Amino acid sequence: YISKSLKRSSKVLDFHYPHQLKEGLEGFSLELPDQPDNLEQLLVDCRDTLKYGVKTGHPRFFNQLSTGLDIIGLAGEWLTSTANTNMFTYEISPVFILMEEVVLRKMHSIIGWPEEDGDGIFCPGGTMSNLYSVLLARFHLFPAVKTHGMSAIPRLALFTSAHSHYSIKKSAAVLGIGSENVIVVRCDERGKMISSELNSSIEAGLVPFYVNATAGTTVYGAFDALNEIADICEHHGLLLSNKHRVKLQGIERAHSVTWNPHKMMGVPLQCSTILVKRKGLLQECNQLCAEYLFQPDKHYDVSYDTGDKSIQCGRHVDVFKLWLMWKAKVWQTISLFKLNVFSTTIRNVSWKMTLKRRTDFQLVFKGKPEHSNVCFWPRARQRTSHGKSRNEVAPKIKTKMMEEGFTMIGYQPLEDKVNFFRCVFSNPATQREDVDFLIDEITRLGCEL
Amino acid sequence: YISKSLKRSSKVLDFHYPHQLKEGLEGFSLELPDQPDNLEQLLVDCRDTLKYGVKTGHPRFFNQLSTGLDIIGLAGEWLTSTANTNMFTYEISPVFILMEEVVLRKMHSIIGWPEEDGDGIFCPGGTMSNLYSVLLARFHLFPAVKTHGMSAIPRLALFTSAHSHYSIKKSAAVLGIGSENVIVVRCDERGKMISSELNSSIEAGLVPFYVNATAGTTVYGAFDALNEIADICEHHGLLLSNKHRVKLQGIERAHSVTWNPHKMMGVPLQCSTILVKRKGLLQECNQLCAEYLFQPDKHYDVSYDTGDKSIQCGRHVDVFKLWLMWKAKVWQTISLFKLNVFSTTIRNVSWKMTLKRRTDFQLVFKGKPEHSNVCFWPRARQRTSHGKSRNEVAPKIKTKMMEEGFTMIGYQPLEDKVNFFRCVFSNPATQREDVDFLIDEITRLGCEL
Repeated sequence: YISKSLKRSSKVLDFHYPHQLKEGLEGFSLELPDQPDNLEQLLVDCRDTLKYGVKTGHPRFFNQLSTGLDIIGLAGEWLTSTANTNMFTYEISPVFILMEEVVLRKMHSIIGWPEEDGDGIFCPGGTMSNLYSVLLARFHLFPAVKTHGMSAIPRLALFTSAHSHYSIKKSAAVLGIGSENVIVVRCDERGKMISSELNSSIEAGLVPFYVNATAGTTVYGAFDALNEIADICEHHGLLLSNKHRVKLQGIERAHSVTWNPHKMMGVPLQCSTILVKRKGLLQECNQLCAEYLFQPDKHYDVSYDTGDKSIQCGRHVDVFKLWLMWKAKVWQTISLFKLNVFSTTIRNVSWKMTLKRRTDFQLVFKGKPEHSNVCFWPRARQRTSHGKSRNEVAPKIKTKMMEEGFTMIGYQPLEDKVNFFRCVFSNPATQREDVDFLIDEITRLGCEL
Repeated sequence: YISKSLKRSSKVLDFHYPHQLKEGLEGFSLELPDQPDNLEQLLVDCRDTLKYGVKTGHPRFFNQLSTGLDIIGLAGEWLTSTANTNMFTYEISPVFILMEEVVLRKMHSIIGWPEEDGDGIFCPGGTMSNLYSVLLARFHLFPAVKTHGMSAIPRLALFTSAHSHYSIKKSAAVLGIGSENVIVVRCDERGKMISSELNSSIEAGLVPFYVNATAGTTVYGAFDALNEIADICEHHGLLLSNKHRVKLQGIERAHSVTWNPHKMMGVPLQCSTILVKRKGLLQECNQLCAEYLFQPDKHYDVSYDTGDKSIQCGRHVDVFKLWLMWKAKVWQTISLFKLNVFSTTIRNVSWKMTLKRRTDFQLVFKGKPEHSNVCFWPRARQRTSHGKSRNEVAPKIKTKMMEEGFTMIGYQPLEDKVNFFRCVFSNPATQREDVDFLIDEITRLGCEL
């Protein structure tokens, strides 16, 4: 499967519509039987499950930021599932608990915080990491909220850019703050938060407590101006959080950072962290001291029972695969973005050589991309003069692309812009020829519309 | 590793204190190097990681409810990590999305809901499933909370028993309801919620909206009286949720059910579900319609893009291992508790044969245990007359037990009861002789105190 995943001649996916898969394809039934299946049948099922899935490690899979299939990371995940343990206490996860400490400390130092200060935890995905971050900020300023709830504290407002990830709004909805109290700050044409607008938004009303800045936005890959935003936060006494990737100056001024190794670092899903500047805050915010897990009279240092820092009780071991990859490829991760430099090269090449010179494509924003995202419209014949039909071009091309199955790329509208493609480069298996292939495919499929 | 895990002569753990592991044992260093390690070193690291970990599949590991190492489940987890995809959309997880639907539908029918009604989602652990449940109940009664926050709705109260899992309080803290608004209903001496007290608690004040009932409490393994509680909920117009395991009559009257296959069904961690009676509620409560993932103009039925039902954005694939195990051992899971029947047998045997007849043990509550938990005090010589030193017996025995490493069991105090052992049976590898071994070990270690 893995070698097939990496082979260009194999399809990225063998697409079928939901009703086709549900009806059962060539004997592959998803239904649960009344009698146990034998081992042979189970093996066939496993083969079919992979056959009808999507090869996210394929060099021509451009659909998501989390791509690639790192063998060391995969080995780490296999060992983790064999160990089948849980992150709540040192007593049942001594090695993994200490590994988490080691890796988080390293991440702190990369951010620019003193290694020994700071805290953090691995979370089930970046949205949960962001939720932790908002939760901690609220608790830091208004600790009464934990016991008394939102009714005991003033109405809060938090700030994020129009191009930021939807997890900030989701966090506000879940935490009882309300999504309308997320103040959306406008972006410039490159997708960066307009810092001056942040300033005036903060002055507008409610009790501001949290600003989210993004280093690499989801669609454009834009980097917010961290130092400018940090200045504004300091002026207003707000907590600053940075999400996704670490690149720009000023990151060390954030009070919390969401860093997802399962994105640009190519670690198998799930691997996401929330890093917190103030030691102890995670524990104070979330601890409930359940006595059946966190007995204070244990024989070892119970500060290693990190389970009371988390929202979850049981917590999956996500650290080992990252630890193992880090040991194996220190060059790739220690400077954080060798991998990123690599994809930058591909991106620049592809951007210069293809999109800029070809009149059948139009870039969504001018100038060299800052990160691994290239956003563009294909100019499909005839239809492009009408807004509505132009909006249909990308979905129609994508439909044909998926039905044929040789490559995959995502599209979306954004603000006043009709559907455009977003090409993300984060898979080390991707080479120049794969980008050329993608561009040619889009052209070919567009012509057929 | 797996066959060693199952061998009685091998240790459950090779315990070391945090400072010992951090200093590096026999060359096993947790620190991240400045230069990449070679493959040979990585393999040694993998071996050492397993060596110093805890064998949670060992027949003499009684420390947690999630134990055992199911080979089919493990194979499922390995395939899942090889596929390395994400549950947010059908386009990148067609097979797994449909499997989730199939498995959830089956779980609905076991609960007693019509298969086609109902909804649900796999969550990163039971605490997150319970958090979903509280979140959904709040949204169902006060949909304005999603956009306007808690300040737009009345002060809420929720109800749970004194012996219930701490995740209910944690949910209240995280969601902005406040942990003090969790009204704790007293239990009888067997750990069951006293339903009449629930009735009077509800009448006491605030706006009641949610009752949690437990089928198999964490420590005693008690089953709350679901039908009685459902009657009270109906009378007051409240939402009823059931967590953990499904056994008792009345479960079908719950509006949501948390069911953790990674507990009594022996599925590798993590595998937990929240099941919801009202179709559409999950989506309405959590959707934010991010356009880069959930484009409405896709070519397939976008109701299969289930990612907007979840709090998370990216979501780990937890369904496959359960699906595969279900296919392989339908006998074990279709009637839900063949496994449970099995452990009930062991429990009864062990309880009758050992604890009841031996004067060196005392059961924490009288009568036959209802579920897989047996709670008892060891009567260590001399000290038992003093409350304080009696409280120290279990921790001291556990310390010696861990240092020797041949078996593991948890302890805790509960309400006015000093530290007692909780023996949980959920590992199919456990046999009668393992229970005898545990009891003898506790006696031996207690005598040495």
